[in-house]
Amino acid sequence: MVAMTPTDLKSTEEPPATRSSLARAAAGEQLAHPPVWFMRQAGRSLPEYRKLRLGTSMLQACRTPDLVTEITLQPVRRHRVDAAIFFSDIVVPLVAVDLEVEIVAGTGPVVAHPVRTAADVAAIRRLEESDVADIAVSVRQLVAELGDVPLIGFAGAPYTLASYLIEGGPSKEHARTKALMYSEPALWHALLARLAEISATFLRVQLAAGASAVQLFDSWAGGLSAADYAEYVLPHSQAVFAALADHQVPKIHFGVGTGELLELMRSAGASVVGVDWRVPLDVAAARIGGDTAVQGNLDPAVLLADWPVIERSVRRVVEQGRRAPGHIFNLGHGVLPDTDPDVLTRVVELVHSL
Amino acid sequence: MVAMTPTDLKSTEEPPATRSSLARAAAGEQLAHPPVWFMRQAGRSLPEYRKLRLGTSMLQACRTPDLVTEITLQPVRRHRVDAAIFFSDIVVPLVAVDLEVEIVAGTGPVVAHPVRTAADVAAIRRLEESDVADIAVSVRQLVAELGDVPLIGFAGAPYTLASYLIEGGPSKEHARTKALMYSEPALWHALLARLAEISATFLRVQLAAGASAVQLFDSWAGGLSAADYAEYVLPHSQAVFAALADHQVPKIHFGVGTGELLELMRSAGASVVGVDWRVPLDVAAARIGGDTAVQGNLDPAVLLADWPVIERSVRRVVEQGRRAPGHIFNLGHGVLPDTDPDVLTRVVELVHSL
Repeated sequence: MVAMTPTDLKSTEEPPATRSSLARAAAGEQLAHPPVWFMRQAGRSLPEYRKLRLGTSMLQACRTPDLVTEITLQPVRRHRVDAAIFFSDIVVPLVAVDLEVEIVAGTGPVVAHPVRTAADVAAIRRLEESDVADIAVSVRQLVAELGDVPLIGFAGAPYTLASYLIEGGPSKEHARTKALMYSEPALWHALLARLAEISATFLRVQLAAGASAVQLFDSWAGGLSAADYAEYVLPHSQAVFAALADHQVPKIHFGVGTGELLELMRSAGASVVGVDWRVPLDVAAARIGGDTAVQGNLDPAVLLADWPVIERSVRRVVEQGRRAPGHIFNLGHGVLPDTDPDVLTRVVELVHSL
Repeated sequence: MVAMTPTDLKSTEEPPATRSSLARAAAGEQLAHPPVWFMRQAGRSLPEYRKLRLGTSMLQACRTPDLVTEITLQPVRRHRVDAAIFFSDIVVPLVAVDLEVEIVAGTGPVVAHPVRTAADVAAIRRLEESDVADIAVSVRQLVAELGDVPLIGFAGAPYTLASYLIEGGPSKEHARTKALMYSEPALWHALLARLAEISATFLRVQLAAGASAVQLFDSWAGGLSAADYAEYVLPHSQAVFAALADHQVPKIHFGVGTGELLELMRSAGASVVGVDWRVPLDVAAARIGGDTAVQGNLDPAVLLADWPVIERSVRRVVEQGRRAPGHIFNLGHGVLPDTDPDVLTRVVELVHSL
């Protein structure tokens, strides 16, 4: 493991967004090797993270700038990835507008009062920049430490936020969410419009503070058919990206199991579409069309296998990515907690050597 | 609700498999309206099922012919569906070869000693017909009661069985399963070959006792890329269907989230491919190619919405199914426990009226 001190990460003069390998790949440049980062690179796979989190709840950690900074930097130092992903949780902006959400270990976010009526929706207020002043502080600290390593801002997309609020917590089927969506479209659209404003503000705060890219996570969108996605979700994800139009930065849009939605997710306004491991990157690029870059898509479970299997799989992903108009190497979903961090470091070295 | 007495269901002379609407649709005939049944039609959505199950564990129920018969008949009587699905559980044949599996309410199957080593695999014995003599009794009773309503035999596919055995229970990521699959291919293939024999025997017992169709459930296959499915799973699902080659009956193959796998699943030897709600049936049929019939694919969550939404969605599925070479109307996954059974009855009536 190579330990990078904060000094190693200090900035030079050029604006990071325009020259980072992440930005170049996102803009459709085929580099000698793709930039590489990992979803959930900051988190439970790292012993230094588990140590730092002892005694601090997830939501406390997300709102403490020194912790956010350190946790976000840990994988950058350790693995020498080409981008940092802002350490946060999908529900942070919901808590910031005073919704009662708790993150229960082993379960996920639990919402005290699920949102299911017009009154529930009307009670969700706008997110003001002042609600997340700490987020801006975290981003500014991080950007100063990261130097020319770009920081990717983080937010959950309206559909995924809505599904947590409506179900009251994680759900396999999202049945209540869909039932409300189908049965009360006016209420649905009011809720998603409000959540789109919240997501957009959360990302704008991060961009204003110096983040040089964003990723909008629509974790559960893959549970929808394309027709339902287009009707009930797309306009609201579009609203999020439209609110970021004045920021010329890579805009990554990702969900799991979205093979049928890739082109629609691009049309939401993404400049990079994240792809899970189910669709090879060259197939995904063809499905998306145009010159949109792709991100992905090594199956995170592959990292639990022996190195020869991992190496073969990494090479295949890079090879398929070369046939796309721009490729950012990543997993097809987040790092699994059981992943050996040394394996992640070795994957970065391998990608950089290809 | 129309109550059909067992007498209403009595057989006539013609062999059911050749003239049922299910068999005709599976053979590629476009009928005036598609036959309709629902995955998990027998089960928790029905109050008469919940009453009958009181005090009896799932596995006990599955091994008690009078209960299996009654539970399997309940939705046929109530909804007048065009097929019965044999009431069982995916782990029944595993328990029958003496593996210690318990079905824990709210969790699912829990395996006492997960299978992870060569010794674990070697210890899994073959399923003998005598191990499931009760299953044959259940099927014979059912066929006598059902008359010209076809009985669909039920088994889990090797991959899904393996994932339960390796994980030790239900899993979201199937990470251990995949790690073993990638890292120990010889062990993997030995395990899946044995599970294929078990699945095949379990289905052959049902066919020999009079089931006139089968459905092989590969519930978790959709978590695999097409390349991995083709390498690690397909040969074993093929072995199951190959073992049924002497039975000229509809052979349905289904998994969730299998948009990238549909053609491969057909090539396993299915005459009907089940499709979840993510892929419209006409698109699915084009992806599968040839003259293979499709089954599906109403999103089960739609049934929680208001009737106008349900009606519109049912009509759309039937419409898209008319553009496939044969269509069996079904949901895109199992009936959700919260579903109002009267809605299911109404859907059957609607499909039959179209």
